Amino acid sequence: VQKQNLAELQCLLDKLHPADIAYVLEALPLEDRLLIWNMVKAEHDGEVLLEASDAIRETLITDMGNTELVAAAEQLDADEIADLAPDLPQDVLEDVLWALPITEREQLRAAMSFPEDAVGALMDFDVITIREDVRLEVVLRYLRRLDELPDHTDQLFVVDRDEHLKGVLLVSRLLVSDPETQVAAVMTKEMVKLHPNDNAQQATYAFERYDLVSASVVDVDDKLLGRVTVNAVIDFIREKAENEALNLAGLSEEEDLFAPVLKSVKNRWFWLAVNLVTAFIASRVIGVFEDSIEKLVALAALMPIIAGIGGNSGNQTITMIVRALALGQINTDSAWKLIAKELGVSAVNGLMWGGIVGLFTFIIYQNASLGLVMTAAMILNLLLAALLGVLIPLTLSKCGRDPAIGSSVMITAVTDSGGFFIFLGLATIFLL
Amino acid sequence: VQKQNLAELQCLLDKLHPADIAYVLEALPLEDRLLIWNMVKAEHDGEVLLEASDAIRETLITDMGNTELVAAAEQLDADEIADLAPDLPQDVLEDVLWALPITEREQLRAAMSFPEDAVGALMDFDVITIREDVRLEVVLRYLRRLDELPDHTDQLFVVDRDEHLKGVLLVSRLLVSDPETQVAAVMTKEMVKLHPNDNAQQATYAFERYDLVSASVVDVDDKLLGRVTVNAVIDFIREKAENEALNLAGLSEEEDLFAPVLKSVKNRWFWLAVNLVTAFIASRVIGVFEDSIEKLVALAALMPIIAGIGGNSGNQTITMIVRALALGQINTDSAWKLIAKELGVSAVNGLMWGGIVGLFTFIIYQNASLGLVMTAAMILNLLLAALLGVLIPLTLSKCGRDPAIGSSVMITAVTDSGGFFIFLGLATIFLL
Repeated sequence: VQKQNLAELQCLLDKLHPADIAYVLEALPLEDRLLIWNMVKAEHDGEVLLEASDAIRETLITDMGNTELVAAAEQLDADEIADLAPDLPQDVLEDVLWALPITEREQLRAAMSFPEDAVGALMDFDVITIREDVRLEVVLRYLRRLDELPDHTDQLFVVDRDEHLKGVLLVSRLLVSDPETQVAAVMTKEMVKLHPNDNAQQATYAFERYDLVSASVVDVDDKLLGRVTVNAVIDFIREKAENEALNLAGLSEEEDLFAPVLKSVKNRWFWLAVNLVTAFIASRVIGVFEDSIEKLVALAALMPIIAGIGGNSGNQTITMIVRALALGQINTDSAWKLIAKELGVSAVNGLMWGGIVGLFTFIIYQNASLGLVMTAAMILNLLLAALLGVLIPLTLSKCGRDPAIGSSVMITAVTDSGGFFIFLGLATIFLL
Repeated sequence: VQKQNLAELQCLLDKLHPADIAYVLEALPLEDRLLIWNMVKAEHDGEVLLEASDAIRETLITDMGNTELVAAAEQLDADEIADLAPDLPQDVLEDVLWALPITEREQLRAAMSFPEDAVGALMDFDVITIREDVRLEVVLRYLRRLDELPDHTDQLFVVDRDEHLKGVLLVSRLLVSDPETQVAAVMTKEMVKLHPNDNAQQATYAFERYDLVSASVVDVDDKLLGRVTVNAVIDFIREKAENEALNLAGLSEEEDLFAPVLKSVKNRWFWLAVNLVTAFIASRVIGVFEDSIEKLVALAALMPIIAGIGGNSGNQTITMIVRALALGQINTDSAWKLIAKELGVSAVNGLMWGGIVGLFTFIIYQNASLGLVMTAAMILNLLLAALLGVLIPLTLSKCGRDPAIGSSVMITAVTDSGGFFIFLGLATIFLL
């Protein structure tokens, strides 16, 4: 960033949407990022922090003083502050809490109390409530007295005196109906009601399936607590998909592209360590058969093929099963059907690819029995991969754990060690 | 499904939302699925087909006669028929085309002409347009004459006589403003305008960043063509994330959980074949060093560790880079910074894990030089993984290809063959 352009830059920044500022900051190396961050208008600070990804937000917050942070947080709604809360220093958070009016303070406390994957964490409190015994005309006049409607207001919530949800009045119905009609006559009584402790993932399916823009959140007595809007749902879907991709690749969490080396090492060490342990086990399995390899050194060159294809095939099965579990498509009855099907797929693949591999082995090493052992080992390892590709995610899910996390590492560990064991074992028995 | 319960089931089905029916169908084995499908009311057929996933939709369409299919398609809007079109038999599609009124036929042709990842493919034509020189009162009266508003109508599009987009009137502004105001006075002129050939992925970022419910689609002359709504965007995001996960695991496309074995084999053979080729190459690399392995058989047991950790670390780097590329956070300038950083991370990891692995090797085999070779090979393979982990996706992206597809397979191929070569080569030079 050239100094003489700073004024121009300032002018440009002032015109940008907070989300765009966050985007620019994410693409900049640390030094430039902080330079730009200090040029952002203070009244945008809160919004930018909210829009930035976790890793970037951390670098920005570290750069700010406590007073600045409190000022930034105070520009936000209670549910938004709750999103920032985990990254804020404790004393800043307390200052913010005490500066809030009492209702908002209660809302913030409530929002902070939900785990990240509960509906409560996606909820906001910007609801417009109306009564069912008034005419639409009155509703329209009531709305006109407001300066603006909350974002994503596609429905008004119809509640009774005690805030119990009776129905919703869709804005689109409000607009096409005769103003003399009563709310009760045009409101919808069948609507999606979420509970704050519901699983957020399930709620996102409801949004996808019913094409919702917003949905009510009620407590056990049907009392209206707030709403979830589609933008929170999109953010959740995106974050979930990204975390899955990161975990699969062995990254613990989202990483700042320009994070210092040591910080990145910290983010990546866990899965590398897990991988190291499983690789050591596989190595010891091979170690058991060192005598066989010494006698027939071709085994050393061939064994990675068996392990590799097994891992690939097992991961295919696991991906199918994890997805079906997430969508709730698997029950005990279908589990057996699935195992049978996956074993069938593996048998076909094993005969086909095992046959080809066996043939090539025979051609290269001029050894027919070695070719047959390759074919047999391939088939067995693929069957092992299919069986455990179904059982690992099902078991994780039965134990109440997320079947997506770590199951790919586990299946690879099994198909590596298992593949080496099957192949070297068969070779020892039949060839030596 | 028990026969005596069929009547009850029918009753239940009639009450279900089409999306829920599609969901139920997806979780059923083929036979039960077709039984239920035949019980679904004909007037829901189109909607259910639209909501079902590609693999399931295919099985349902195969089960239907041409007349049924035409009838089902005719219940849908032009943009919805376009979504089904790739799965419909050619003659059904033509019958549907000719049965449509001329404007819808043109819309369907237009919608079908866009590639799947263009904004045009997400677009629908349900826009309400108004003029800027009328009072809000008139707009409200105009809306009241409609039976219902299109789903996701959060804004009305303000156009001139030639359909050029002048601005948008947010429904929330319409509701809070004085009915005597002119549209021109309250409409928003700064709005998101998409073009039908824009990349759909970029459009989804706009929806996320600006929390949109709908956005206009205009041609080069700013003429309004249609709109994109948030539900289409969510479906696109979900599908994109799923395809990525499937490709990474070596599945070509979404698969029906209960697909026949041979159909599943077809879906999975491609990546298994690719994997087989790379495994063969790695095997030949080992083959070159058979003499060395014969002399020191411990090499065979240790080599998978070097290859495995390299693959894991390379995949970590690739995942970071692919994500940053998708978000447009990388330019030529930052590419060098990234390579330097990733090399740094690899050097630290290599020293740390390589040191541990070297130590264990020394303890197990009582051979200090073997331990040192392990450490050196680990460091070198991790550096190779870092370098290519940045270069592979950057090169794919420069060549205009999707960096997500296949890059994980490529890095694993490099770190396998490269790892074997580095380790066995070092061992041959220094130990034998």
